Formats: sequence, structure tokens, C-alpha cells
Amino acid sequence: MLKPLGDRVLVEILEEAEQKTAGGLFVPDSAKEKSQRGKVVAVGSGKTTDSGVKVALEVKEGDTVYFAKYGGTEVTLEGKNYSILAERDILAIVE
Amino acid sequence: MLKPLGDRVLVEILEEAEQKTAGGLFVPDSAKEKSQRGKVVAVGSGKTTDSGVKVALEVKEGDTVYFAKYGGTEVTLEGKNYSILAERDILAIVE
Amino acid sequence: MLKPLGDRVLVEILEEAEQKTAGGLFVPDSAKEKSQRGKVVAVGSGKTTDSGVKVALEVKEGDTVYFAKYGGTEVTLEGKNYSILAERDILAIVE
Amino acid sequence: MLKPLGDRVLVEILEEAEQKTAGGLFVPDSAKEKSQRGKVVAVGSGKTTDSGVKVALEVKEGDTVYFAKYGGTEVTLEGKNYSILAERDILAIVE
Amino acid sequence: MLKPLGDRVLVEILEEAEQKTAGGLFVPDSAKEKSQRGKVVAVGSGKTTDSGVKVALEVKEGDTVYFAKYGGTEVTLEGKNYSILAERDILAIVE
Amino acid sequence: MLKPLGDRVLVEILEEAEQKTAGGLFVPDSAKEKSQRGKVVAVGSGKTTDSGVKVALEVKEGDTVYFAKYGGTEVTLEGKNYSILAERDILAIVE
Amino acid sequence: MLKPLGDRVLVEILEEAEQKTAGGLFVPDSAKEKSQRGKVVAVGSGKTTDSGVKVALEVKEGDTVYFAKYGGTEVTLEGKNYSILAERDILAIVE
Repeated sequence: MLKPLGDRVLVEILEEAEQKTAGGLFVPDSAKEKSQRGKVVAVGSGKTTDSGVKVALEVKEGDTVYFAKYGGTEVTLEGKNYSILAERDILAIVE
Repeated sequence: MLKPLGDRVLVEILEEAEQKTAGGLFVPDSAKEKSQRGKVVAVGSGKTTDSGVKVALEVKEGDTVYFAKYGGTEVTLEGKNYSILAERDILAIVE
Repeated sequence: MLKPLGDRVLVEILEEAEQKTAGGLFVPDSAKEKSQRGKVVAVGSGKTTDSGVKVALEVKEGDTVYFAKYGGTEVTLEGKNYSILAERDILAIVE
Repeated sequence: MLKPLGDRVLVEILEEAEQKTAGGLFVPDSAKEKSQRGKVVAVGSGKTTDSGVKVALEVKEGDTVYFAKYGGTEVTLEGKNYSILAERDILAIVE
Repeated sequence: MLKPLGDRVLVEILEEAEQKTAGGLFVPDSAKEKSQRGKVVAVGSGKTTDSGVKVALEVKEGDTVYFAKYGGTEVTLEGKNYSILAERDILAIVE
Repeated sequence: MLKPLGDRVLVEILEEAEQKTAGGLFVPDSAKEKSQRGKVVAVGSGKTTDSGVKVALEVKEGDTVYFAKYGGTEVTLEGKNYSILAERDILAIVE
Repeated sequence: MLKPLGDRVLVEILEEAEQKTAGGLFVPDSAKEKSQRGKVVAVGSGKTTDSGVKVALEVKEGDTVYFAKYGGTEVTLEGKNYSILAERDILAIVE
């Protein structure tokens, strides 16, 4: 498995099909190219600021999230698609 | 429902029609492409500065706000249109 | 009325005509496209720096100001034209 | 009169003609498009850094200065030409 | 051998062939041009922040890592290919 | 005379001819367009950092320096050519 | 001799020929345009951060280093080629 570094997060990309059946939730056409839904699989240890302060991440393993599609790097592991992205590219947690 | 991360805010986009009937308030043609009115539905936990200080957001749930149209990502939830945007893209609160 | 956020200021834009009659004060042709005169109607609560310090604005309600024309977003309220702009786009106060 | 904001300075632009007669001092052709001479008429209250520290300006009313021509906004007041510019665009004081 | 400076890391680039046989792990076509797998051979002493704080690196000698292909400078040493890159260009550690 | 502001330095530009006779020291053709030799005539009071700390300059009056040719603004005073430039555009002191 | 300023380093550029004979170490064709080998001849006094902290350099006189070729300014002194470059453009020390 992959352990993300710093403020990075490993997200399993959820299928487009699932994306439309979760309680009527869907992303409109124009936005589809910008945001994507996924499940957090692993998180980095946090970001170190210029003052040397370590700031823990807000997202945690198991969270379902919306993230900016353009922001990450895609990786495939045992047939599943993942994205490694910085936490600032995660827009919101589905609750 | 969506919980925004960090300094992000979830805003329900108000219809253009409503936008013109609220006490004579309207946005001129040239500006229409730049600003938009909406209602704050959920707010993030705040922004962490380089010094590790957590700064709470100024806007709160229920606020009617003007925001920069280009700044957010649109999401549709149960037939309503929302924008997830950073607080710095919110221009003013309607009082 | 609109309450600006952070370091933003709500300025009522003064007519070009007025701009030329105030004690011989006028903006030359080349500069006309860059600066504009207006009256401060409302100010935000200030800017929060990276250290978490809140810095109050220098301008206050009632000030007549020169501001960079390109910097703000225009809004019309009950027939009057306003600009919502960051304080750093205000050049000077007329005394 | 105009009171500059923050780290801005109001400078009365000196005529090109004067610029060549002051003790043999003149700006060569290639540089003429880059620097300009003027007299400081009013200064802002200083710059507030990210730490919330107010830093006073080095130039004061009455100083004759060289400044970067591209940096400011020109304003005309009772027939005289002024430039409102940030102190960092002032290169040197004539002593 | 090479000792990287500051927050830089010396990574031995693993062959594309190996990259596809490690437990079914592989990078899809579109991502192949963006990320690469390698083994950390040497690390710098860390990054000094603006506050003068020295922040040690998260990766250590022997780690197998994914890194952004565009970020480093390639060097060949005794027939093996290496990349010298900043730690921020390392995406994740393979565990 | 000119008194530079902040972290700026006033440098008298040395003739290209002199530049080639000083102990065999010369700048190759390709680099000639990038660096230049001069003598420091006056220095500013230093740079104020974001923390409000005043940092004195390293160069002092009388130093012979190499500086980046593109970085300064040229001024002519009583027939001599000067450059007003920021200290960060000075590369080295000739010892 | 030249004394570099701040975080700058004076590096004597080693010949391409030498570069290929040192224990089988060589730089591949594609990378040749990006990195270069040299010997540190003099170092600056260090970098002053925004907090006013002086950070000493990691490299020292006599170190053989790899550096980014595009980052420095070339100078010729008594027939030898040197580069004046910032320490951040030095990639690694040869040990």
C-alpha cells in the first residue's frame, strides 16, 4: 500500500455510476470536469508550516470526499484507481 | 450533506429572479458575470495560518452573501445548485 | 445594505461630473482609466495576517477616497453604483 | 489635499526642464523612461507587516526623490501633476 | 557518492519492468508520464524555514517512493540512473 | 548626491576598459551581458523584514562589486554613470 | 578574488573531460544541459530570513558539487571559469 507524504492524501476514486445514485446527489455536466468523488484510504502526517509547526490533516481514513479533479496524480493498485493529492485540493467531506 | 474543508464555504446559489426583487437590489449587466448572490449552508472549520493559528470564518450558516462567481466549484444536491468556495471569494454579507 | 468581509470596503462611486468640480481637482485623461473617486459607505472588520493578528482598516465610513478602478466588483443598490474592493486598492483619502 | 494610504506617498512631479539644471544632474536617454524626479508632498502612515508591526516610511514631506516612473498613478490637482506611489517604487533621496 | 543538499533526496530510478511486477501494482498509461518509482539512496539534512527552524525529511534511506517525474535532475553513477529531487516532489512511500 | 532607500545601493559603473585590466580579471563574452563591475558610492539603511527587523546591508561605501546588469536603474550625475539597485542584485565583492 | 554575497557561492567550473573520468561518474546526454560539476572556492555569509535569522550555508570551501547550470552568472578570473550562484541551485555534494 502507499503512504502519502506531508499534506498529501491517497483517495480511491469512486465510479461515476455510484456518484449519481447516492441520495439524489450528482454533479452537473459543467462541473463534472472539475470535481470528483472518492474515499480516503490513507493520509500523510500533516503539513509543516514556515514556523516549523506540524498541522494535522482534517480528513481521515474512511471519509468520502469531493476533490478537485485536476489536482492529483493517478495511480492504479490491484485494479483500483487512486489519486494522490494535497489536502488543499479536497473541497468537502460528504456527511 | 457536504461539510466544507478549511476556509471553504458551501453556498446555495439563489435564482437570478430573486436577485432582482430584494428591495430594489440588483447587479448591473457588466458585473453580472463577476458576482452572484447565495445563502451560506455550511462553513469549514477555518484557515490555519503559517504560524499554526486557526482563524475562524467571518460568515456563518444562514448568511446571504455576494461572492465572486469565478471562484468556486458548482455541485448539485437534490435538485438545488451549490457552490463550494474559499471565504476570500465572498465579497460581502447582505444585512 | 451590504457589509464587506475582511479587508474589503464598500464605496459609492461618485459621478465623473462631480469629479471635475471639487476645488479644481481632476484626473488627467491618461489616468482616468486607472483611478476613480468615491465615498466609503461601509468597511470590513479588517485583515487577519499570517500571525493571526487582526489589522483594522485605515479608511472609515464617510471618507472620500481615490481608488484603483480595476480592483473592485461593481454592484448597484437602489439606483446607486457601488464598488466592493480591498483596502489595498484605495490610493488616498481626500482631506 | 490627498492623504496617501499605508505605504503610499504623494509626489509632485518636477518638470523635465528642472531635471536637467540641478547641478549638472540629469538622467540619460535610456533611463528617462524608467525614473523620474519629484517632491514628496504627503506620506502614508506606514506599512503593516504580516506580524502586525507598523513600519514607518523613510521618506518625509519635502524630500526630493527619484522614483520608478511605471509604479504610480498620476493625479492632477489645481494644475500640478502628482503621482501616488508605494514607497518601494522610490529609488533614492536627493541630498 | 552524492550527498543531497537541504530538502533534496537522491533516488535510484527503478526500471519500468520492475514497476509492473510488484504485487500487481502498476501506473496507468496517462499517469506514466507524471509519476515514477524509485529507491531513496541518500537524503539531505532538511529544510530551513523562514523562522530558522530545521525541518528533517520524512523519507529515509531505503524507502521505495513514488515521485513526480518532472521535478528532479537526472544523474548517472556507475551505470545506474538517479534523480536528485526536492522532497516535496515525492508523492508517497510504498509500504 | 543621492541617498538610496531601504536595501538599495548606489553604484558608480566602472568602464568596460578598466574591467579587463584589473589583474587579468575579465568577464567572458556570453556573461558580459549579465554582470557588470562598479564601486559602491552610497548604501541604503537596510531592509525591513516582515517581522519588523531592520537588516543592515553587507556591502559598504568603497566596495568594488559585481552586479547583475539587468537589475538596476541608471542615473548620470556630473558626467559619471551610476546604477541604483537592490543589494540582492549584487553578486560578489572584489577583495 | 571574489567574495560572494548572502547565500551565494563562487564555484570553479570543472572541465567536461574531468567530469567523465571520476570513478565512472558521468551525466547522461539529456541531463548534461541541466547540471554541472564544480569546486566551491568561496561562500557567502549566509541567508537572512524574514525573521532576521542568519542561516549559514551547508557547502564549504573545497567541496565538489553538482549545480543547476541555468542558475548562476559566469565570471572568468585569470583564465579559469567560475559561476556565482545561490546555494539553492546546488543539488548535491560529491563525497
